[in-house]
Amino acid sequence: MKQTILVVGGLAAGPSAASKAKRINPDAEVILFEQGEHVSYGICEVPYYIGGTVTEFDDLNPLDPAALERSRGIKVKVGHSAEQILSTKKKLVVRDLNRDKLAEFTYDKLILAVGSISRQMTVEGKDAKNIFRVKSLADGIAIKKFIDEKRPTRCVIVGGGYVGMELCEALVERGINVVLLHTDDYPMTGLEHETRKAVHSELVKNGVNFKQRQNVTRFVSDADNTIHSVVTETGSFECDFVILAVGVKPNSDLASKARIHLGQHHGILTDERQSTNIDSIFAAGDCCEVKNMITGKWLYIPLATYASRQGRVAGENAAGGRAVFKGAIRSIAVKVFGLEVAQVGISSSEAQENGFDFIKVQVTTDSKVAYFPGNAKIDIVAIADKRSHRLLGANIFGGPGSVLRADVLGLAMQQKMTVEELSQIDLIYSPPFSPLWDPVLILANQLKGKLSARS
Amino acid sequence: MKQTILVVGGLAAGPSAASKAKRINPDAEVILFEQGEHVSYGICEVPYYIGGTVTEFDDLNPLDPAALERSRGIKVKVGHSAEQILSTKKKLVVRDLNRDKLAEFTYDKLILAVGSISRQMTVEGKDAKNIFRVKSLADGIAIKKFIDEKRPTRCVIVGGGYVGMELCEALVERGINVVLLHTDDYPMTGLEHETRKAVHSELVKNGVNFKQRQNVTRFVSDADNTIHSVVTETGSFECDFVILAVGVKPNSDLASKARIHLGQHHGILTDERQSTNIDSIFAAGDCCEVKNMITGKWLYIPLATYASRQGRVAGENAAGGRAVFKGAIRSIAVKVFGLEVAQVGISSSEAQENGFDFIKVQVTTDSKVAYFPGNAKIDIVAIADKRSHRLLGANIFGGPGSVLRADVLGLAMQQKMTVEELSQIDLIYSPPFSPLWDPVLILANQLKGKLSARS
Repeated sequence: MKQTILVVGGLAAGPSAASKAKRINPDAEVILFEQGEHVSYGICEVPYYIGGTVTEFDDLNPLDPAALERSRGIKVKVGHSAEQILSTKKKLVVRDLNRDKLAEFTYDKLILAVGSISRQMTVEGKDAKNIFRVKSLADGIAIKKFIDEKRPTRCVIVGGGYVGMELCEALVERGINVVLLHTDDYPMTGLEHETRKAVHSELVKNGVNFKQRQNVTRFVSDADNTIHSVVTETGSFECDFVILAVGVKPNSDLASKARIHLGQHHGILTDERQSTNIDSIFAAGDCCEVKNMITGKWLYIPLATYASRQGRVAGENAAGGRAVFKGAIRSIAVKVFGLEVAQVGISSSEAQENGFDFIKVQVTTDSKVAYFPGNAKIDIVAIADKRSHRLLGANIFGGPGSVLRADVLGLAMQQKMTVEELSQIDLIYSPPFSPLWDPVLILANQLKGKLSARS
Repeated sequence: MKQTILVVGGLAAGPSAASKAKRINPDAEVILFEQGEHVSYGICEVPYYIGGTVTEFDDLNPLDPAALERSRGIKVKVGHSAEQILSTKKKLVVRDLNRDKLAEFTYDKLILAVGSISRQMTVEGKDAKNIFRVKSLADGIAIKKFIDEKRPTRCVIVGGGYVGMELCEALVERGINVVLLHTDDYPMTGLEHETRKAVHSELVKNGVNFKQRQNVTRFVSDADNTIHSVVTETGSFECDFVILAVGVKPNSDLASKARIHLGQHHGILTDERQSTNIDSIFAAGDCCEVKNMITGKWLYIPLATYASRQGRVAGENAAGGRAVFKGAIRSIAVKVFGLEVAQVGISSSEAQENGFDFIKVQVTTDSKVAYFPGNAKIDIVAIADKRSHRLLGANIFGGPGSVLRADVLGLAMQQKMTVEELSQIDLIYSPPFSPLWDPVLILANQLKGKLSARS
């Protein structure tokens, strides 16, 4: 079937959608628009590119537009920004940024994969030359170039979330002194208090100057528009450059103007087929909200895994197939220097907000047989529902082997397992890999005991 | 309730059963008989004690009989062998091996946790001074002492299964040249052919002289009753000592004589409560068969994890509780030098024997983002049922991160997940830990594709 499928957005969801659509219907004309110059790169690896763990640019960006066209038969138009959707006419208005010209493209199906945008700061001096974000490969290249050329020694990072953690490690590896300004008492708001304290210790241990409860009020620049200090309500921090890691929000203005329904987090709402409320328009990736499988509520969880999956689903359905994305439990991990940290499911505070009556347990376990070389401590903080006895959420933090175990807990949540069922599962025991009672089983037994003690 | 619970066997299942029984009913008199001198030690760690990875004897044997009595309130009688069960009188006849005296003990409940025994070899010379087994802590101590004192340089290991693999690594670490004699073409009979070839390469790469299709016909000893060569149907192998790792079978003679039902593998059959067919007699651990949750058949899978669990269940039920052990899928792993190897579920040949119509897939994947430092290859060979699309079994082999991923596949099997369901699960992606598409998801997508291509 000859059809035209337009895809807007070239990072994760967009190329997935375009590739899948072309595979499902090789006769379709698939055109992908990307406003930047790069497509299909590893945005999650950018902090590691800055830090020097990843050294080759090609590793980050294996598919340039030409390669994507050649290998997958997709027409790729970089430097093109979608400006308006004329949904009744099934047309997309696109601006060629290099030539500053508008053009209209007719579609049979349209897939929006326009991603996220940085949260804005309304702070004086925020547009200085030495202030950076980490939202694109271009941003990563700019930071790396700045460090390589200017040899700065002091950085202020604003924001202590996942990206902030990765940047701390990257900059410390480059020999830069880091001040981390966070609005809250401990880093990684959203994780359990126990986890956040462990992350805080790890940062401090590695020389990061973590400053709690800091709201930036001013960036002090010199005549050259270069920031030399960051001022907050309670202090002032000198620096050679600043990185903002203050989070992202859905890029949903284009969709909103086309009367596509948004959720309460301002992300696009879709059905399980990634179809929006407007005929022939699909959406995927960080511009969308995600159905949380534990609470049944829409959340904003911008993760590359969901973007890729939703992209495939949107692409398949746009090309006439039938695929579904059922939602997510939230599975996320970060390396904070020597500490592995993962979160699966919902947190205590989310459980509270959603009206769950739950118990919380923390276990400190061994990753291997205790006296085995390479054994490390693994802590798990988990919550379970008092009524159904289902596992609702867990944080894991510790040495090697922590993060991969989170996937076992995550799968148990996806399968709606009770803690009693979890305590019965058959896991591997072998001295070099795990203790006789795996951390997951120790946790399950603790949760089970606490639940039965109450009933 | 004042009751007497006798437990026979002091390794894994026995102490678990005795401890649990005493915890459930603190008033009970719990007596544990063990024919050897050690109780409750880490038999799985013995190869690592021989190899020197584990250096402290106390690490292997944290609970001596006195400590077990003191900490758990169990009476422990080492050097005592149970010789006969008088089930109608509810008496156990026990021989005190040191004083060579028989005594009768009356029980309210009896728990048999008598473990396994080595497979016998009917080969001339098998009782020489320098031939060892690895069935007990005493065996491990003897081997270590022999190596420390005699400084041997050449060993013949007979048997290329799990224990054989661990011994190869242990001896190579001690600087000993190893000839490994195996009856089959490749080591690790029972695993998939692809896995076995990888294990074979790893052995060869590490200097192990693997000899396939070898049946030992004679151990050639000198006048001193010391073996100096091992003769097979096709060759002769000089050595300073021999270790037999030819596998184990259930120790079920005592049970059999008491008319306790055995299965076709000669292990004790129990119900889910670990109760045998004879009133008031329970059994747990390596003397029992285990219900395979995938085929529903009884198998002999002597693993410490099942022994500990069954022990707890038997102990709880003997003391008046209600606990169940529902069976196992088989989750087992071994480290072969630098190669992590795991098996979960059933193999292709078991699937064939059990009449499954199945597909088989092999994927070679990355453990992390491909260009990340420390990335390693992970291979998964897996089978799925054509009719139900359920995952039936998998082997994983490769670098770090292989074995822990097997637990995700194992849990999926326990949950009777289809490959389509598996392909939808939410797993962690973070460059230091896993690629965008985790090996488990890549496998699931391959299986799904192959199944849908056929239908």
